[in-house]
Amino acid sequence: MKIAILGTGMVGQTLAVALAAKGHEVMMGTRDVAKSLASTEPNGYGMPSFGVWHKDHNSVRVGTFSDAAAFGEVLVNASSGGVSLEMLNQAKAGSVGNKVLIDVANDLDFSKGMPPMSRSNDVAGAGLAEKIQTAYPNLRVVKTLNTMSAFVMVNPSLVSSGDSTVFMSGNDADAKKTVQSILQSFGWKDIMDLGDITSSRAVEMLMPVWLRAWGVMGQTPFNFKIAR
Amino acid sequence: MKIAILGTGMVGQTLAVALAAKGHEVMMGTRDVAKSLASTEPNGYGMPSFGVWHKDHNSVRVGTFSDAAAFGEVLVNASSGGVSLEMLNQAKAGSVGNKVLIDVANDLDFSKGMPPMSRSNDVAGAGLAEKIQTAYPNLRVVKTLNTMSAFVMVNPSLVSSGDSTVFMSGNDADAKKTVQSILQSFGWKDIMDLGDITSSRAVEMLMPVWLRAWGVMGQTPFNFKIAR
Repeated sequence: MKIAILGTGMVGQTLAVALAAKGHEVMMGTRDVAKSLASTEPNGYGMPSFGVWHKDHNSVRVGTFSDAAAFGEVLVNASSGGVSLEMLNQAKAGSVGNKVLIDVANDLDFSKGMPPMSRSNDVAGAGLAEKIQTAYPNLRVVKTLNTMSAFVMVNPSLVSSGDSTVFMSGNDADAKKTVQSILQSFGWKDIMDLGDITSSRAVEMLMPVWLRAWGVMGQTPFNFKIAR
Repeated sequence: MKIAILGTGMVGQTLAVALAAKGHEVMMGTRDVAKSLASTEPNGYGMPSFGVWHKDHNSVRVGTFSDAAAFGEVLVNASSGGVSLEMLNQAKAGSVGNKVLIDVANDLDFSKGMPPMSRSNDVAGAGLAEKIQTAYPNLRVVKTLNTMSAFVMVNPSLVSSGDSTVFMSGNDADAKKTVQSILQSFGWKDIMDLGDITSSRAVEMLMPVWLRAWGVMGQTPFNFKIAR
């Protein structure tokens, strides 16, 4: 399948490598292709720049956000949640038809210190995936994979021998089937469909506990499991 | 230990029975003792009224909120989150010293239909346990047990042979030790201390996923596990 990954950070890179390894054709979208490919400064987490990373992964295509959105049969929002809507506007997401958009982003507020806060909440307003679905009603938005580190997203066996849960929310049953098959290809077994896109707000609200647990446990790979 | 349970609903009843079975002296607090003991109407979930329930559990003392708060060495907030602050005011919680208050409540908004929404959110305001701690700075508030059904609270072996997680948040280390020993007496093994009371907001934000998962799975006992 042709998959567009919108965003070139650690999440986008990790997904790109994993999807390419499964035989998908991957194009990553970025704001300024020449600038991204020329970048050499490591990011704030000490990870290589996108330019350096791409030298080792040059089978992954790189284009503008709109190049990528036009290329992909499935789009992945791997941007920071705070800029996702603006990025989708640059990607001309309103004119790419009813493609599946896998939203793995979290809309976090770093302005009040660490840990960052989640802007997704129940009573005062909608979550990120709901906002994207409202802004781009043609896209078939599926929220998933936003409740774990990038490494766990593509390799669930890192946690508890693969025994943890990934959630999925969206309005379109076929889109969820497509996403489910991608998740299964990564090794996910406990895929919990929580319902329509309104349920994604609840899943986005898991991030504050994830961040606290990360603070307590450090770098240990971990994930939520709905234990029965 | 003398334990006061503030609130006579299903959560309060379940905790009262379990704590009494561990040898604690339990007093339940209610707004109007005579009216509660005379009640015969089943509640909205088809559970027996408090009056009927108490006939079978009359070793559990019953008093006003302030009777109970004066009696208990440890207080438990088992009220609905929306009325907890008013109830603590009736309990004269500001004048009972620095007792431990175990807050198991969730502040849910049922006004927009089902599932109810959580009023706890990161960016727009504090969570319930934080509000209680601010209103009653002498109390040593520990948030715990709010992320599962009452039956699982007191019997974690109902879920995954006991392999699920209970969170704990609070500012006072000794209070957390007291709470930990109560949790251990119920059989909890994976007790995750997430930090000071500000971390309780994150834990309260788990409720929306709990409610969605409940909707998907029905009555199955389940709980969150932080899988490593």
